[in-house]
Amino acid sequence: MIGGRRPLQGRKVADRRVRVERPHSPYFRYTGPGMLTAKAAASLAPAASRRPSETIRRLLFGRRLSNEEEAFERLPKKLALPIFSSDAISSSAYATEEILRVFVVAGAGALLVSIQMSLAIVALLAVVSVSYRQVCRAYPSGGGAYVVARENISHLAGLVAAAALLIDYVMTVAVSTASAVSQVYSVVPELYDIRVEIALGAIALITIANLRGLREAGLFFASPTYLFVGLTLLVIGLGIARIATGQGAVTAPPTDQLLPLGTEPLGIILILRAFAAGSVALTGVEAIANGVPAFKPPEAKNAANTMTTMAILLGVLFIGITIVADGFGIRPTEQGGPTVIAMVAAAVFGDGTIPFVAFQAATALILFLAVNTSFNAFPRLSAILARDEYMPRQFAFRGDRLAFSWGIIALASVAGLILIIFGGDTHALIPLYSVGVFVTFTLSQAGMVRHWFTVREPGWWWRAGVNAAGAILTLVVLAVVTSIKFVDGAWLVIALIPIQILVFTFVHRQYAASRAQVALRPDQVAPEPHRHERVVVPVSGINRAVIQAVNVGRSVSSDVRAVLVSDDPVYAEEVRAAWERQVPGVDLIVVESPYRALTGPLLAYLEVLDLTWPPDKEMPVTFVVIPEFVPRHWWERLLYNQSTAELRRALLGRPDTVVTSVPYRREEPDAFRRRDGTDAENR
Amino acid sequence: MIGGRRPLQGRKVADRRVRVERPHSPYFRYTGPGMLTAKAAASLAPAASRRPSETIRRLLFGRRLSNEEEAFERLPKKLALPIFSSDAISSSAYATEEILRVFVVAGAGALLVSIQMSLAIVALLAVVSVSYRQVCRAYPSGGGAYVVARENISHLAGLVAAAALLIDYVMTVAVSTASAVSQVYSVVPELYDIRVEIALGAIALITIANLRGLREAGLFFASPTYLFVGLTLLVIGLGIARIATGQGAVTAPPTDQLLPLGTEPLGIILILRAFAAGSVALTGVEAIANGVPAFKPPEAKNAANTMTTMAILLGVLFIGITIVADGFGIRPTEQGGPTVIAMVAAAVFGDGTIPFVAFQAATALILFLAVNTSFNAFPRLSAILARDEYMPRQFAFRGDRLAFSWGIIALASVAGLILIIFGGDTHALIPLYSVGVFVTFTLSQAGMVRHWFTVREPGWWWRAGVNAAGAILTLVVLAVVTSIKFVDGAWLVIALIPIQILVFTFVHRQYAASRAQVALRPDQVAPEPHRHERVVVPVSGINRAVIQAVNVGRSVSSDVRAVLVSDDPVYAEEVRAAWERQVPGVDLIVVESPYRALTGPLLAYLEVLDLTWPPDKEMPVTFVVIPEFVPRHWWERLLYNQSTAELRRALLGRPDTVVTSVPYRREEPDAFRRRDGTDAENR
Repeated sequence: MIGGRRPLQGRKVADRRVRVERPHSPYFRYTGPGMLTAKAAASLAPAASRRPSETIRRLLFGRRLSNEEEAFERLPKKLALPIFSSDAISSSAYATEEILRVFVVAGAGALLVSIQMSLAIVALLAVVSVSYRQVCRAYPSGGGAYVVARENISHLAGLVAAAALLIDYVMTVAVSTASAVSQVYSVVPELYDIRVEIALGAIALITIANLRGLREAGLFFASPTYLFVGLTLLVIGLGIARIATGQGAVTAPPTDQLLPLGTEPLGIILILRAFAAGSVALTGVEAIANGVPAFKPPEAKNAANTMTTMAILLGVLFIGITIVADGFGIRPTEQGGPTVIAMVAAAVFGDGTIPFVAFQAATALILFLAVNTSFNAFPRLSAILARDEYMPRQFAFRGDRLAFSWGIIALASVAGLILIIFGGDTHALIPLYSVGVFVTFTLSQAGMVRHWFTVREPGWWWRAGVNAAGAILTLVVLAVVTSIKFVDGAWLVIALIPIQILVFTFVHRQYAASRAQVALRPDQVAPEPHRHERVVVPVSGINRAVIQAVNVGRSVSSDVRAVLVSDDPVYAEEVRAAWERQVPGVDLIVVESPYRALTGPLLAYLEVLDLTWPPDKEMPVTFVVIPEFVPRHWWERLLYNQSTAELRRALLGRPDTVVTSVPYRREEPDAFRRRDGTDAENR
Repeated sequence: MIGGRRPLQGRKVADRRVRVERPHSPYFRYTGPGMLTAKAAASLAPAASRRPSETIRRLLFGRRLSNEEEAFERLPKKLALPIFSSDAISSSAYATEEILRVFVVAGAGALLVSIQMSLAIVALLAVVSVSYRQVCRAYPSGGGAYVVARENISHLAGLVAAAALLIDYVMTVAVSTASAVSQVYSVVPELYDIRVEIALGAIALITIANLRGLREAGLFFASPTYLFVGLTLLVIGLGIARIATGQGAVTAPPTDQLLPLGTEPLGIILILRAFAAGSVALTGVEAIANGVPAFKPPEAKNAANTMTTMAILLGVLFIGITIVADGFGIRPTEQGGPTVIAMVAAAVFGDGTIPFVAFQAATALILFLAVNTSFNAFPRLSAILARDEYMPRQFAFRGDRLAFSWGIIALASVAGLILIIFGGDTHALIPLYSVGVFVTFTLSQAGMVRHWFTVREPGWWWRAGVNAAGAILTLVVLAVVTSIKFVDGAWLVIALIPIQILVFTFVHRQYAASRAQVALRPDQVAPEPHRHERVVVPVSGINRAVIQAVNVGRSVSSDVRAVLVSDDPVYAEEVRAAWERQVPGVDLIVVESPYRALTGPLLAYLEVLDLTWPPDKEMPVTFVVIPEFVPRHWWERLLYNQSTAELRRALLGRPDTVVTSVPYRREEPDAFRRRDGTDAENR
């Protein structure tokens, strides 16, 4: 016997323990008295493969993974850069276009202001990324805005950051997918009509890949980013060379789809509007700071340097694309036309040429990679929130492939819904995107200021100053973005954040309340049980499953009643006659149910049992013992256990009642076989 | 104490019984020793209202009904006629059109043959209805084809009839809905484009109404039939008068949509084709024979007479519409144009006039009524098949509103799917419709022949002759319809019937096999249980729910182990320290699970327990006692019990293991309160 018994002293006993404890070894390490540590093999549920939908699952999601298979890979900078930067760098695919879409109402001259505007946004990017370098250093364990804000400001600030981040991740999926699809229909305009279907199909694929436990690692995930950066730098270089030599655009953009040039004056509102639109370039900048532990040591330093490289790359691409677009006089098209970045590439490479198509493919790929980043980040944050009891606990459960399945499915569903509602239009989605990002930035930087004031390490005032500048700047941008884009959709995000926080708090209070309700004072000692037990076994007739259940009941108490609920008095009398002969010593109660109901009459019978109990004696615990069929195939779920499940649900509502499920299977040796002595060979 | 104990003799004991038995009275009648009969109140599950989706359900489906509320209403002939005939009579709305659609390829002259063709079909109708009058008399309890064929021919014949009937009911829903919608877009052509949506919406409404327990009774269901019959007779009368006075059509049909007249010769194939098309007029004729018990006494006579009235009405309407259509030179239109019956009405009343719109509304209404007839018949037949174990048992379960919910939902789903696949086109659906009907007819009449040979009551040879004529005639028609319409879709029905029978047989064998597996020989006597029990309680810490579960476990056996699976060794040590202080006498095993898994390590622990059991002793029954949260609100399902459910599923696969669920609720007085003496006031 093992477990829970203190090992006795003396050699003989020790020998016995060795013999007896060997069975542990595949599953556990014995780590002390009454103490086992599970090995990976024990973490796999052995019975799980019996589930009915297993075949389909395996086909879609692959074989189950043991926990050991989650390799925690440390990334060198040259892999970490592309993997953590895809979200940020891919924003250059749409940021220029968003600025041009604003300026187009003020005529051709205003379009040229977009270069200054992109410079201003890159300046903001510089401040934010310097500010985030500090986060890398201060939180080598991964400084997500939730953690930084909660630890340094308050729980509420943490929740605000978490809510904004969750919105952010959803919007990254929606915007990047929409943009990726728009790159595709920039090449094949016929696909415009099924853009939403393509987007949903892409999300479905990414969802399945992530439920399969896709890990972002290796060259496969690094290459699209490098490809995009390389090709874009080529486009910018060739473009600027052409413009400088006065060659202009090779391919004219399709003029019938271009947005008309307006004549509005270039006022402050328009400039702020363009700034708010372009600030979407900053989305995804925080990813590196969240992923510090994935870097090779020295983690903090490597991450900080990667952050700088990323910011420089993003800045160069963004400004470069804006300059070339301006130089070629490219302006945005109506819904369904090619994207600005596609027109830039077409102007440089020639429309329909192989380099053009390759460029578009690279752009679409890096955007899908950005989507995938969110598919890693959203479930991970949800799991942290679930562990902190702000979200339902199942968000912290890992699926068979070690993925946080609930989070993945929640993200895919919400993002898919948003894509459907907004008709897959990138431009329409942008106003919802940038608000959450700047909430996150502001809280994170503000948290860092508090952090430096607390730790006061050498040079803290300097570091606090950098973060304070970042916080103030991002707060101002947040105010600008929110007020400028309020009616376009920013209001929705502003409204959603408090709603999410209400839900977080509600969930937290529920868990706290139910814990408090069942909590014990540390000095309370559990009483010995002193209640009487009685057993009720609902039976449908006499068979092995019923006898097995009755015998389980008899091992609990000598007070066992079998109850037959039947609408057929003749059958009931047959059963009674057989019962008295075959199951001596156990009473059979026949409850005739003319209306064919099962659950109702049984509950009423239990009620009557309770009412007839002497009122001066403590109520006994009623064990209701139900035979339950163990399905071996998915279709068996359709054929069996339907009334059992209903009965179980109804019984779990009764006071002083517990439900014991006795499984039966066709193959299983049962009470009778055992009796016949065939026990040994059947086991 | 009641139940199962034989009442003792003697006055004193009798007195005690009176005092003790009063609690029965709201729920049961005491009908003998150990024998209770449930009253209606006991058939309602008291705990059902706790289900999470209750509010939505109540809104959609209304309050729960007790079984007593199913009034079995006896119908006078004037109500039975319209209610049971809607299916048959409504076929006149499309039968003429189906004939004309065939003849149109042979030119204007051939169209006139449609009158002779309708006369031939009405002759067939006469034979079939006389034949069915016999069924009414022989099966006053309702002679569905399944029952007649099974009792008189064989089980297989019964299953063939059942399969054909199920297909029939599905096709009635699909065809009648499609035809009803085509009557609607005959008035408002703009609705043609959303015909499938309208059809699905109508099916959804009828589904909800039937899940609410809609009963076909009263004037509400009778009026559309009378309205349709009355208005159609008016159309026919006015039409024939016009034709006789040579006034011709008032409104010309929209010629641009008419099918072109062909020049094919009027050969035998074409005539058979038209016959097969028109025979769809006979669908629904069997309904009265199925519903005999619903008639006022003398049931059989009343039903037989109603059958005759129905056949005469159907015959008159069908021939009349054909004559008027021919007289006005109306021919079918392309898909999307008005129906023939709509053009007839428009020709008589004038297109767009109020009588025309009223006529179309009445036509649509009677067609929807025919749909509703199937919504009664399909679930009822499924329930009979489920009770005979040919379909999953849940088809025999009644929902809260006493409706067979599974059957209703299955019918709506399949019919809806068919409507979508066939694009809501009545004409395309017809080939699938008439095959099943004639299979049913043939088997039913053949069964009756055998019936008369068996009972040999006075005049049996005459009655057998009538049914034999009916059987042979319908068999010939079946052969014609099947061969003529084979490629148009009849093959699908021919293929479906054996598939359904395979499923029926498979389900039947499953139930039989699992019953045989657990069956006992009548001479076997259940052994006294002699196995050891042990208890394992998975715990998450120390709280009232855990203590309650531990105490339930201690009442089962003295061999109780609590198992804490945790990924946090510090927490585990805290719990152990508290456990030793607060739950003395129960061992706590700590299983450290570094990968956060719960189910796997617990199952592995149970495996180790089994392996360490002395091999020469019989394996004990392991009771795994799990605290289960009782949800009070729907959202609590999202917050609690997720890991419990997974654990339960996995454990039910283990041999020698039973699972005991100990419910806990926030309000519930628990083991500790009881100990404090507050027990009495809390109960």
